[in-house]
Amino acid sequence: MEPIATSYSDVAINLGTTHRQVVPITLFVAVLCLCLVIGHLLDENRWVNESITAIIIGCVVGTIILCISKWKSSQLLRFDEELFFIYLLPPIIFNAGFSVKKKQFFHNFIPIMLFGVTGVFISTSIVAAGCWWLFPKLGLKGLTTSEYLSIGTIFSSTDTVCTLQVLHQDETPLLYSLVFGEGVVNDATSVVLFNAVRKITANTLGVKAALRIVLDFLYLFSTSTVLGVTAGLLTSYILRGLGFGRHSSVREISLMILIAYLSYMLAELFELSGILTVFFAGVVMSHYAWHNVTESSRITTRHAFAAMSFIAETFIFLYVGMDALDYEKWKMSTLSVWTSVGIYSTVMLLILVGRAAFVFPLSFIANCMHKGEDPSSKITGQHQVVIWWAGLMRGAVSVALAFKQFTLSGVTLDPINATMITTTTVIVLFSTVVFGFLTKPLIRYLLPSNTSNTGTSRSTSPKDEITLPLLSFEESASENLSRAKENISMLMERPVYTIHSYWRRFDDTYMRPIFGGARNNNLS
Amino acid sequence: MEPIATSYSDVAINLGTTHRQVVPITLFVAVLCLCLVIGHLLDENRWVNESITAIIIGCVVGTIILCISKWKSSQLLRFDEELFFIYLLPPIIFNAGFSVKKKQFFHNFIPIMLFGVTGVFISTSIVAAGCWWLFPKLGLKGLTTSEYLSIGTIFSSTDTVCTLQVLHQDETPLLYSLVFGEGVVNDATSVVLFNAVRKITANTLGVKAALRIVLDFLYLFSTSTVLGVTAGLLTSYILRGLGFGRHSSVREISLMILIAYLSYMLAELFELSGILTVFFAGVVMSHYAWHNVTESSRITTRHAFAAMSFIAETFIFLYVGMDALDYEKWKMSTLSVWTSVGIYSTVMLLILVGRAAFVFPLSFIANCMHKGEDPSSKITGQHQVVIWWAGLMRGAVSVALAFKQFTLSGVTLDPINATMITTTTVIVLFSTVVFGFLTKPLIRYLLPSNTSNTGTSRSTSPKDEITLPLLSFEESASENLSRAKENISMLMERPVYTIHSYWRRFDDTYMRPIFGGARNNNLS
Repeated sequence: MEPIATSYSDVAINLGTTHRQVVPITLFVAVLCLCLVIGHLLDENRWVNESITAIIIGCVVGTIILCISKWKSSQLLRFDEELFFIYLLPPIIFNAGFSVKKKQFFHNFIPIMLFGVTGVFISTSIVAAGCWWLFPKLGLKGLTTSEYLSIGTIFSSTDTVCTLQVLHQDETPLLYSLVFGEGVVNDATSVVLFNAVRKITANTLGVKAALRIVLDFLYLFSTSTVLGVTAGLLTSYILRGLGFGRHSSVREISLMILIAYLSYMLAELFELSGILTVFFAGVVMSHYAWHNVTESSRITTRHAFAAMSFIAETFIFLYVGMDALDYEKWKMSTLSVWTSVGIYSTVMLLILVGRAAFVFPLSFIANCMHKGEDPSSKITGQHQVVIWWAGLMRGAVSVALAFKQFTLSGVTLDPINATMITTTTVIVLFSTVVFGFLTKPLIRYLLPSNTSNTGTSRSTSPKDEITLPLLSFEESASENLSRAKENISMLMERPVYTIHSYWRRFDDTYMRPIFGGARNNNLS
Repeated sequence: MEPIATSYSDVAINLGTTHRQVVPITLFVAVLCLCLVIGHLLDENRWVNESITAIIIGCVVGTIILCISKWKSSQLLRFDEELFFIYLLPPIIFNAGFSVKKKQFFHNFIPIMLFGVTGVFISTSIVAAGCWWLFPKLGLKGLTTSEYLSIGTIFSSTDTVCTLQVLHQDETPLLYSLVFGEGVVNDATSVVLFNAVRKITANTLGVKAALRIVLDFLYLFSTSTVLGVTAGLLTSYILRGLGFGRHSSVREISLMILIAYLSYMLAELFELSGILTVFFAGVVMSHYAWHNVTESSRITTRHAFAAMSFIAETFIFLYVGMDALDYEKWKMSTLSVWTSVGIYSTVMLLILVGRAAFVFPLSFIANCMHKGEDPSSKITGQHQVVIWWAGLMRGAVSVALAFKQFTLSGVTLDPINATMITTTTVIVLFSTVVFGFLTKPLIRYLLPSNTSNTGTSRSTSPKDEITLPLLSFEESASENLSRAKENISMLMERPVYTIHSYWRRFDDTYMRPIFGGARNNNLS
């Protein structure tokens, strides 16, 4: 007598399900290993990078699967945007917040916010308006206002992985901080904006609706930030107050991971932006909590979070590569080849224009605001071109948003939706591979590494290193600490933003005594 | 896989599913955080431990959910034994292999194998025979031969988490190594044996079938070990040959995790024992690969793997606590209260007898084999009692096997199956809580820490520390290395097993030059 399986056919189904899970996971993990090894071997070759490697390997594996399955499918795993938003995105964003150069980030807060928030609004408007104007002319009809706006946000989320692999934070700290900072804020803004525009019902677009989007956005942005900061402070307080490290660093590490993840899930539950929440949880944790744990926990968290993020990113690019060959979606799109090419070119062009439309004007504004400041914080013309180029790549977030908008659990039967999915895939592939390949030569041309004086003038100054002991991966924290102490007097002489110095005073007087933090900054 | 949704009602269902995922995950993570904090606060209190805390918190949360859902369910997540076998078990066992004191483990290889392999066979036979004889007398009929044997294996897998939290590897290294080693091998043996006995069809039990089980077992044991060792060696070779550390430790860490997981999944795919495979992958990786990576990767892997394992373990105990209140299963079991109590007592008694029946005789055999040796490797009477007691707890593996045998994806409709599930839950709860509570006083009574001379005589000798630089979590590897070098001459004077010394010579001459490893043992 078998278990309640009542009949043998049920057992067979059960076994079938089991194998449906085990086989694809095994293959996917095997391909991930392959990616890692090949990515490492190609590391010397600066034309390609991990994202491109993963996408190309994904394409190759997809082709093989397509051949084996006789043109039925090129996928190992059905892309579920839940998988992406619940499991893959949190570690990536958390690690971004955890490893961001906090001082640089806050020092360049205004330009980062201009690019990352205002920029997305401008880019979204241009892409959405452009598509709304041009798509019907190309023969693609039937999209609603809300869908055009969604397309705008989908193609406004940048993927700066490629660029960051080429830029060096020691050579060009300002540029690195701007590109990285914009990348993170941009991701968050696109997701928040995407959720805001999806709520719009047909033909209600007007001043009122636009105002509502902005208000929605501000509400989501502020509540998500508060939630993230609260989670980070709570962790810091628990780790400091209860002295977890006394017994084992395992608990410290587990607590940091779990609370960060909890904050993300809570944000998703309350329909806030998990991405912003977990980003700020990461920032606060690395500012306070990180200093309350044992030495080994510090090293572990830094590398373990980076490894989680790395695996998740590779996973996504691999998937994008495989999905590119999904025969079903290509077949479903009813448009002719030329129309399709027209649509891809249109979107690509709109992305180029949309980004140019905010990078150059906003850089000008940022430069005006910095007038009285240190000339090193001025964004030069070359920098502006690099920032513009750096944000042209489209990546995982675009794919995830597109799947969320145009499919149900990765499946679509509607030709227009299928077209939008294939368009997203083409744009992601094209921008990552082609623009990615060209990034290195472009940066080398615009910023010859020995003459990039705006950058090096700052990075060679020891002042910058003072609040960034976290970031030199290969050095122990104590080493950094002692070095930082020597430099403390030098910091004092330097002009900082008034707001920044107020924050520092507040931080030293009220926050650090409660939540802990690097002792080298306790100036009181 | 989700069916293809086409209409709006499907959209609503899909949204429902989304929330069905987000809400329980959020709650579960929140409860996990709570467990961590409470577990830490109760850490001073040596009567309870993390497992007991998690189970009790699980019960409390289960009660609350039961009240809120109006007696419908006490579960947040449906227990899917796939979830357990695919996601939770691999990190636990991998970490066990990765952090096992290899020298102690291999030094005590014979008694560990006697307890962990022969012991499970003896215990399974006694429990299975006892149930087969007593269950019908108590009024529980309808179980097949294969099911009785499964019950035998289910109740032969020990959970030594409690005991290991009480024993100290510095005070009683022999005992610690025996209990830990047996725990790991025992888990693997029970899973392998469980899979072997499930294949038996009704009434074919005899000498031939028994022989087949043994052969099946030997085949699974050897192939799984070979696969795990191969995976470990492959990782070591890649890390050494390609010099991953040159660029980033992120890749090193990712590669170790991914290949270990891949080996587990491959084993599952080929219907081998993933648990043994990943255990040996862990052992080999910590013996070779660990020495080929950067300092920060070493610290990170050690703590990150331990943290993953810790979270997975807490997750399981929490689940067991919640599941205990699953009203549906209790209602389904048609037996009277007294019959149920009779069954629980019978099983508990059989576990006690089954374990006694192999610990004492096998200890005697092990002592005979060690006759010419160091008296410190003799298992004394007190030790035997502690070993017997240490293996009485039943834990996660028992639950997972019971779910695999008696439910389909966590659901059962058959009264007998429901009874077996509730019996497992009761046994796990009772043994973990009651026996767990008594472990500390018992060990204190049997092994007063100052007079446990059999243990301390060995641990105070610096010889033991020589191959174990990995295990002092708070010290840097280089510190250990230098200390180890000083002690090298002392090791030479000491008698080791002939087989062990042959292995060492082989390891030094052929293996380490290819796969890397601690340089302090390169005696050639």
